[in-house]
Amino acid sequence: MADSQKKLSTEAYKGVRDFYPEEQAVQNFMFDTLKRFVEKVGYVEYGASILEPAELYRSKGAENAEMVNEQTYTFTDRGDREVTLRPEMTPTVARMVAARRRDLGFPLRLYSIPNVFRYERPQKGRLREHWQLNVDIFGTKSSYADAEILGVAYGIMRTFGAKESDFVIKVGSRSYLDAFAKERGLTDEQYKTLRRLLDAKDKMTAQEFEAGLSELEIEPGMLSADNPPADIEQMLKEFAAANINNIVYDPSIVRGFDYYTGMVFEVFNTNPENRRALFGGGRYDNLTALFDDEPCPGVGFGMGDVTLRDFLASRNLIPAYVPPTHVYIAITSPELAGKAQTFAGDLREAGVNVAIDFGDRKLADQIRMASKHKIRHLIVLGEDEITSGNIKIKDMESGDESLLSKADVAAFLLKA
Amino acid sequence: MADSQKKLSTEAYKGVRDFYPEEQAVQNFMFDTLKRFVEKVGYVEYGASILEPAELYRSKGAENAEMVNEQTYTFTDRGDREVTLRPEMTPTVARMVAARRRDLGFPLRLYSIPNVFRYERPQKGRLREHWQLNVDIFGTKSSYADAEILGVAYGIMRTFGAKESDFVIKVGSRSYLDAFAKERGLTDEQYKTLRRLLDAKDKMTAQEFEAGLSELEIEPGMLSADNPPADIEQMLKEFAAANINNIVYDPSIVRGFDYYTGMVFEVFNTNPENRRALFGGGRYDNLTALFDDEPCPGVGFGMGDVTLRDFLASRNLIPAYVPPTHVYIAITSPELAGKAQTFAGDLREAGVNVAIDFGDRKLADQIRMASKHKIRHLIVLGEDEITSGNIKIKDMESGDESLLSKADVAAFLLKA
Repeated sequence: MADSQKKLSTEAYKGVRDFYPEEQAVQNFMFDTLKRFVEKVGYVEYGASILEPAELYRSKGAENAEMVNEQTYTFTDRGDREVTLRPEMTPTVARMVAARRRDLGFPLRLYSIPNVFRYERPQKGRLREHWQLNVDIFGTKSSYADAEILGVAYGIMRTFGAKESDFVIKVGSRSYLDAFAKERGLTDEQYKTLRRLLDAKDKMTAQEFEAGLSELEIEPGMLSADNPPADIEQMLKEFAAANINNIVYDPSIVRGFDYYTGMVFEVFNTNPENRRALFGGGRYDNLTALFDDEPCPGVGFGMGDVTLRDFLASRNLIPAYVPPTHVYIAITSPELAGKAQTFAGDLREAGVNVAIDFGDRKLADQIRMASKHKIRHLIVLGEDEITSGNIKIKDMESGDESLLSKADVAAFLLKA
Repeated sequence: MADSQKKLSTEAYKGVRDFYPEEQAVQNFMFDTLKRFVEKVGYVEYGASILEPAELYRSKGAENAEMVNEQTYTFTDRGDREVTLRPEMTPTVARMVAARRRDLGFPLRLYSIPNVFRYERPQKGRLREHWQLNVDIFGTKSSYADAEILGVAYGIMRTFGAKESDFVIKVGSRSYLDAFAKERGLTDEQYKTLRRLLDAKDKMTAQEFEAGLSELEIEPGMLSADNPPADIEQMLKEFAAANINNIVYDPSIVRGFDYYTGMVFEVFNTNPENRRALFGGGRYDNLTALFDDEPCPGVGFGMGDVTLRDFLASRNLIPAYVPPTHVYIAITSPELAGKAQTFAGDLREAGVNVAIDFGDRKLADQIRMASKHKIRHLIVLGEDEITSGNIKIKDMESGDESLLSKADVAAFLLKA
């Protein structure tokens, strides 16, 4: 059909990933671990389409409008609607909560692992599409909700096997900073400059940072880690009492998005060669006001799969690939495919995951396929085995062979 | 912040769905059931981005180019690349298989549950975004692979609890039809007309259908269900021997896509009020030739979530919603939130999924929230309970209350 045409490239679109089984298994391992953990703390899953009206992102102010135009996939559909491929999940979940505010029960704990899109130059750790765990609590201003969200961030890292020394959670406060700016009489413009300065602190020398502060007539000591706001101090005390010691106050944590209103935090890798922020979040008490006169407070975070995967890989915390298939059945002649399928059917009934070969390649090649797919056990089925009911199972890892009667095969495989 | 602005709509983009927890749970139920079943038969999961170069869909011929222009979300990115939101998964998986043909082992069984996009007028069962189980075997022309794919389609329906009488699988043959058209000397145009006629058979009267055939000088009996091709007949015999009796030959099954080359099938609802096709697929032996001189044969199908969900709902096969959270802890005063979290932490350690209330609402309202979230068990924690260690657990379904010592709570909840 296409032989006369120019061949198409087999490459994926620029900046996105193909997930062959071994890569997909890593995604599944991460997502399953995340789901299990957040469900333990009472979060329930929601979902939404990647397609959202563009105005959802434009409405957050002029800066965001620029972000929508420059950094998102936004296009006009055939009904003349402007559509954006969601660049983050928070506006979507805020929209959904606002839509059913009267029916939903609060506090409401929600999570999702959506894919999100950014139109940016692909580079290490920054792809055009990535997945992102989103964890949020709606409907409460309790500082214990802030603490729970920090606890979830901490717990996720620990549940993957990270040690406390592998990461640090730095907590800042937008409400404290707001009050500070007001007290110091900073103009809106000056306050924005201050936030940008704090956000960029790690990228400049202490001198540059202090020079920036002094232009705003702020002495460095006033925004120092030794001088935490009372609510944050109390929270850190309670974490210390629970023997959690890598959550610290850091006034330079402000987060980029305008919608944060209270506690904000970022989780950092402590590896000296890669001290980057892994993920972060905070409190946003006014976001649903975009939709609704009665705002519904929220606190939460987003955690991307690419940075998580890089972190886990660097700490050797990703398990080796094991396919879901327990056993591969090779056959000595293609006519036996039907009988192999019947035998496989009995094993499946008993709970074993079984793939059969159709016998259209030589036996040696069939056996090689079991290894290629990394399936642990192999059975070679021939007329003899079918007649006698004696089945030899080969462990492809150890090379051990076990001879069993047909009726015992399922139990043997399920135990292995 | 946004109070002075016009409020945004809380509606989702037209033709797509929001999944609140109860709806997401149905998706999870369907997807988990599908995954478990296909993994039992040896399929492994892969994934890919929804973004694909538009040429992937255009290259299948002029008709498809029209489909890409009219029925897909296609736009030009800022790098002047034409991008399409995938309308189906088969071209993507063919691309991926072609890309690593030399490294992958065959037969290769792959599955994925991607979301796919069509730009069409939203109507019942036809949304702009839906999810679709894709199951494929690559690298074999064995008719046992065709039979396995039919067996998977059958097995999925049964594993959801459908009876044989609830559905019928109609099998056709593109290769038989190709040979028939050649033998009868039909021109390409006439053959296309014949396929369209067969495809539309259910939508016309017997007279209209026969009139169409006679224009092509074909007697109705030549393409009748009583006259199956030999390979299909043999396959149906083997299904009957395995006591599977709702897979039948139907020459009118041709499938829309041009890429099919052999066995094709569709699964129909037998409900007289809704005899629609639920899903279908077939053999496509040349698709990877778009990328590669050596084509890799394939056979598989795609099953959409919307039709599956409608089918299951109409047969009462969707289980009632149960949240992942086992117990809700209400507190008699907000100061107890920290202690509730500590107690919850112990339960979680033991394997219980626990949500706590932060106590910023009245106790009666907190208890109402447990019901609203449909959480089965409730614990009210006050100073007394903390001091005495005696915990009362209420079963919100039966109303039963059990008084337990703190140490026994986890075991009790896990048993329930």
